[in-house]
Amino acid sequence: MADYRKMWESLGMDLETHDQLCEVLPQAFGDVFLSQENRPEAMDYYNFVIAEIHGVRPQELIKAQEEGKKVFGTFCVYVPDELIFAANAIATGLCGGSQFWVPGGEKVLPTNTCPLIKASVGARLDRTCPFFRIADMYIGETTCDGKKKAWEILGEDVPVHVMDLPQMKREKDIKAWAEEIKELKKVIEEFTGNKVTAESLNESIKLINNKRKALSRLYECRKADKVPISGRDALVISQIAFYDDPARFTQMTNKLCDELEQRIKDGVSVVKEGTKRILLTGTPLAVPNWKLHNIIETSGAVVVCEEMCTGTRYFENLVDETKTTVDEQIDALANRYMGINCACFTPNTGRIDDIIRLAKEYKVDGVIDVNLKFCSLYDVEGYTVERALKEAGIPVMGIETDYTDNDAEQLRTRIGAFIEMIGTK
Amino acid sequence: MADYRKMWESLGMDLETHDQLCEVLPQAFGDVFLSQENRPEAMDYYNFVIAEIHGVRPQELIKAQEEGKKVFGTFCVYVPDELIFAANAIATGLCGGSQFWVPGGEKVLPTNTCPLIKASVGARLDRTCPFFRIADMYIGETTCDGKKKAWEILGEDVPVHVMDLPQMKREKDIKAWAEEIKELKKVIEEFTGNKVTAESLNESIKLINNKRKALSRLYECRKADKVPISGRDALVISQIAFYDDPARFTQMTNKLCDELEQRIKDGVSVVKEGTKRILLTGTPLAVPNWKLHNIIETSGAVVVCEEMCTGTRYFENLVDETKTTVDEQIDALANRYMGINCACFTPNTGRIDDIIRLAKEYKVDGVIDVNLKFCSLYDVEGYTVERALKEAGIPVMGIETDYTDNDAEQLRTRIGAFIEMIGTK
Ligand code: SF4
Ligand code: SF4
Ligand code: SF4
Ligand code: SF4
Repeated sequence: MADYRKMWESLGMDLETHDQLCEVLPQAFGDVFLSQENRPEAMDYYNFVIAEIHGVRPQELIKAQEEGKKVFGTFCVYVPDELIFAANAIATGLCGGSQFWVPGGEKVLPTNTCPLIKASVGARLDRTCPFFRIADMYIGETTCDGKKKAWEILGEDVPVHVMDLPQMKREKDIKAWAEEIKELKKVIEEFTGNKVTAESLNESIKLINNKRKALSRLYECRKADKVPISGRDALVISQIAFYDDPARFTQMTNKLCDELEQRIKDGVSVVKEGTKRILLTGTPLAVPNWKLHNIIETSGAVVVCEEMCTGTRYFENLVDETKTTVDEQIDALANRYMGINCACFTPNTGRIDDIIRLAKEYKVDGVIDVNLKFCSLYDVEGYTVERALKEAGIPVMGIETDYTDNDAEQLRTRIGAFIEMIGTK
Repeated sequence: MADYRKMWESLGMDLETHDQLCEVLPQAFGDVFLSQENRPEAMDYYNFVIAEIHGVRPQELIKAQEEGKKVFGTFCVYVPDELIFAANAIATGLCGGSQFWVPGGEKVLPTNTCPLIKASVGARLDRTCPFFRIADMYIGETTCDGKKKAWEILGEDVPVHVMDLPQMKREKDIKAWAEEIKELKKVIEEFTGNKVTAESLNESIKLINNKRKALSRLYECRKADKVPISGRDALVISQIAFYDDPARFTQMTNKLCDELEQRIKDGVSVVKEGTKRILLTGTPLAVPNWKLHNIIETSGAVVVCEEMCTGTRYFENLVDETKTTVDEQIDALANRYMGINCACFTPNTGRIDDIIRLAKEYKVDGVIDVNLKFCSLYDVEGYTVERALKEAGIPVMGIETDYTDNDAEQLRTRIGAFIEMIGTK
């Protein structure tokens, strides 16, 4: 790994604490990923990205900033990256997925807060993540109670613009979201000094649609009877999608898909025949949260799909590319984004339809409904989700977990029993 | 107490379980209220209301229903009762304030849910509260994660209409709330078969404003150096305001205020001189949640104000009575209601201004910031609230509690120490 200490120092990072993170991450990655057998060769790219996670991409972002570009940090798949790229700026996901950052968040947030929020706030306030330092402005949203209030605390340390996401999905709510996107456009234009034009927006809509198509193609491969890629590898690709350069990411992912499609033709599988196929649904799994996939895939099953924001919710449905005015394009964006089915909406029955559809498409043997501790939204929704799956005859197990390893053994036991159970149906 | 078993039975209530509640409530009320010395005589009315809480008012509501009126149940001070009364219907508050209902809620909701929500859902599903049985329709809102999702579960058992409360307070959000109120009007008109006219709405605006004025007058009395009424008594009056007949409640409360104003003239106090004055701020205290007031007032202090939805947020600011068209009246409603400062908004700095203003007006010695366990909104906001109070030189203590009595002794110790501390400043 190259020496990035100078860069981290100039970002005002807490180097000493950050060193501890640098020590554990490669080990964790090695344990979860590099130990797998028969990985696709094209995974080399993603291995490299993770190995240099706090180095290469941050360096690119800083270089872009030196050339006058702005970097925007986001925390939710409802925030349209298209607008940011259309203003010649860069969007990067900022959700924290490691327990390492949680204690920092707990200094200002209640313990009873979901680890994703605590980690995100901790990563910023403890100055132990370059992405959180680099972003010139954060874009927040009013999705859940914890985030809604966390913006106020983060806003004291970094510029934060909050988008008011409607809590329902009526016709007028889609219009209201379009209005919020228009307001975001103004904020971005002022902050960057660049205008968003129909042309630049058209280009970025295609840019992000292409990323969606590549991910879609990747997921399509996972539907095959002979699974050409592990769930772990697919997950880390989904996670990298949030902060990598979109054009390069698309190119590399399509390259990987070439290999996977060849594997399917050749009947190559990463797991032995009869391995149980699992669909994961629930709260997002932000990088480097690989815990559940690792447990499931070392317990005799394979994850073939994630109905999650780090999964299908991120790439399903494209933005209409045929619109020619900015207003129409923004309506098209609002339409596409309001099609995402997050538990922050009431009601959110579309998600149940999605899960049942995906369970069939991916021919899964069972569904694991995972909830990050203290996420009320997905926790309450789990009640209706799990009931609907049972009614549809799809085996389902609910799990609640956080970023610690305290429950790993207990989860391994429960998940193992579930996999065995669905094996004998 | 009259025999209401027939009525409860016809409401489909679970009589056996309900009997248990009927056994403990009078005892609790006696302990907390009737043991007080030198209570205002006019408290007799409120004593009676509580003694007959599941009898007299339910009987009135059923009688109204027999005459063709509809009853709407509400859960938040943002829902405008005015519209309901203007359609010749009745509004009644439904927030559950007893641990008795919590286990019923936990059957369908995560344990990590605020007790107010669990109790409200439990009271309905367990069929142990006549008000929850009587209400023909519930009006929900998108204020917090727990409630947002609880409507979906309640909606399977009773008609629920959900209002989408904006999460911010810009000019356009006030307009959006007016739109939601218009939609509520349509729903109510269809459900009742009655039209809301400028005339009927004008009347109900005055009706509810008069209730606000009476409560305002009551709270004004609590500013006096010689405190004419205990915090416990004021709290139970605030709680009764949510479901009593508004005209009668106003009349009785004004009668009480006559007595209190005479007391002030006569220099009569319910506490001895030098008793520390406490302002409570935070989550609502739904009936029969009297725990904190009781602990504080039996620990050498008196509660003189509640910056709560069962307190100042309920009655501060009147609706403009001069508007003459329904559209204008609805705008006036939206304006008044969007002036409430609830932690569900981001940001919610107005609440800090309110607390500091109230602390001065009520000449308090200290502020207790109380949070219902698992309410993320008020919990996170407590961080900025308590910091602001410290900066303003106002002693403050944060407390988290639920509906159980498990923490009573611990709270008594902490609150006692706080009261002693602010005594020696
Ligand atoms: S789970 Fe909901 S709030 Fe979280 S990133 Fe996804 S869409 Fe946004
Ligand atoms: S997992 Fe739930 S609580 Fe956590 S950030 Fe997402 S929606 Fe909010
Ligand atoms: S605390 Fe907020 S959500 Fe609860 S009743 Fe008050 S205004 Fe409504
Ligand atoms: S106290 Fe908090 S969590 Fe409970 S209902 Fe009110 S806003 Fe929601």
